[in-house]
Amino acid sequence: MPENRFQNALDRAAADVEKALGKLLPESHALEARLFDAMRHAVLGGGKRLRPFIVLECAELFNVARDRSLRVAVAVELVHCYSLVHDDLPCMDDDDTRRGKPTVHVVYDEATAVLAGDALLTMAFELLADEETSADPLVRMELVKALAKAAGSRGMVGGQILDLLAETTAMDETATVRLQRMKTGAIIAYSAEAGAILGHADRSRRQALRNFAHDLGLAFQIADDLLDLEGSAARAGKAVGKDAGRGKATFVSLLGPDVARERAKILAEQAKTHLAPFGKKGEILLDLCEFVIKRDR
Amino acid sequence: MPENRFQNALDRAAADVEKALGKLLPESHALEARLFDAMRHAVLGGGKRLRPFIVLECAELFNVARDRSLRVAVAVELVHCYSLVHDDLPCMDDDDTRRGKPTVHVVYDEATAVLAGDALLTMAFELLADEETSADPLVRMELVKALAKAAGSRGMVGGQILDLLAETTAMDETATVRLQRMKTGAIIAYSAEAGAILGHADRSRRQALRNFAHDLGLAFQIADDLLDLEGSAARAGKAVGKDAGRGKATFVSLLGPDVARERAKILAEQAKTHLAPFGKKGEILLDLCEFVIKRDR
Repeated sequence: MPENRFQNALDRAAADVEKALGKLLPESHALEARLFDAMRHAVLGGGKRLRPFIVLECAELFNVARDRSLRVAVAVELVHCYSLVHDDLPCMDDDDTRRGKPTVHVVYDEATAVLAGDALLTMAFELLADEETSADPLVRMELVKALAKAAGSRGMVGGQILDLLAETTAMDETATVRLQRMKTGAIIAYSAEAGAILGHADRSRRQALRNFAHDLGLAFQIADDLLDLEGSAARAGKAVGKDAGRGKATFVSLLGPDVARERAKILAEQAKTHLAPFGKKGEILLDLCEFVIKRDR
Repeated sequence: MPENRFQNALDRAAADVEKALGKLLPESHALEARLFDAMRHAVLGGGKRLRPFIVLECAELFNVARDRSLRVAVAVELVHCYSLVHDDLPCMDDDDTRRGKPTVHVVYDEATAVLAGDALLTMAFELLADEETSADPLVRMELVKALAKAAGSRGMVGGQILDLLAETTAMDETATVRLQRMKTGAIIAYSAEAGAILGHADRSRRQALRNFAHDLGLAFQIADDLLDLEGSAARAGKAVGKDAGRGKATFVSLLGPDVARERAKILAEQAKTHLAPFGKKGEILLDLCEFVIKRDR
């Protein structure tokens, strides 16, 4: 039952990440509890935890101890959640709902949302730099450096500004691919690469996992665009149909839904080919390639 | 001429930091240039560069090569500038002027200001993790970990939420000291500690520099509160008189200006005593203790 195997692994990762996040962010009774409450609201109880899952499964390819890779998985999820909190702000995408819950600035206020995002990002680096993440300081350094690159102005944040510009600037397919590689692709690629870093992988395997994640990330994004066009808000747990309403170029608007769907399939198949060096150990990641294009939320 | 010696050192640090920041953030011609322009606006051409100066002078106590300590000085300034950009946002302190220039969200927009701040914070960690900062990966790790602690929810960001709460919550002197220790003290303490980390200082010297910076930071903050009460906006390069307008507890409102001024003096003297282990090498830092309470901007 490959589907059950995959779903079980995904569920287990989500449960482990949820538990670790809860431990990392205990309820606070200090005067600044509002900040910690907002951080908890931002990270707990939701999301597919896809990025942490990629970290865990890629680390598993190299038999990395799960308590180590889980710390990196959590760091990646902290960065992902911080980006959602800032992205949802009224001055950015102005979203009221996320993962089926009101967004942080709706429950608290904008200032608290800005600060909660800042604190989550900062915490990710604290987590990675701690020796519990790896006994090898060079591994911790690589993890910090690669995350900062992926999350920063030449990665995710750069992609977010492009995404804002896309509302007013015409973008062709090349520009859209670049935008998505930066906005969502960089952190997905990091998630896979982090497994390789933790596993002291040689250069070729590390690159194979980056290539895998790059194709997977684009397939994931196209599937996301299709869901935005066709999905229901109830299933997505967030507003849908927003891209078209803003005249924002997406793969779907550029290619049309049928070609976009075909493109996502091709990318998912291509992603699989990069897993060849890992043989049978990569089977769950092969399932993941199917999952990202077939999911309905 | 001790005053000239001090001023020369401060000017040299500011010039070095400015040059390094300019190199780190070259003008961009990519589509996302707006982000880089906003980052440059946030960090270039202004500020006393007091935190970088502390890094450089504390590292100098241990004869650390200046090209190494300068990288850490720049990282600290990136974090300081990011915090100003977010702090100035309409949803936070809503300030239009900073360092005599319009703030980032005024020149660009709020979304760009949020993202520019995010990118500056992220860049600080990228800088520290790079091997050019120190050949010793354990030193880089310590630098990353201590900065994340100082900047995060239990440090600066925690202090910022307390500062927002102070507008509506009565705070006594103990609570105000705690707020300031977190909001401005943590990064000032890190600046001093970073010199010790770079210099492989023993535990007692590292602690001495933390204690020094802690007293210095509070003296600095009281002087800042006095300037907010008595200073002119033209000299400060930012709005003044805002604390009283908001009914926010400060050292000045709690103690009155005369007692506050006396307290700042005592703290500056106390800061000096922690420099005893460094003998003559610490003279510039002794001058700094005088400077923070005598400055007029």
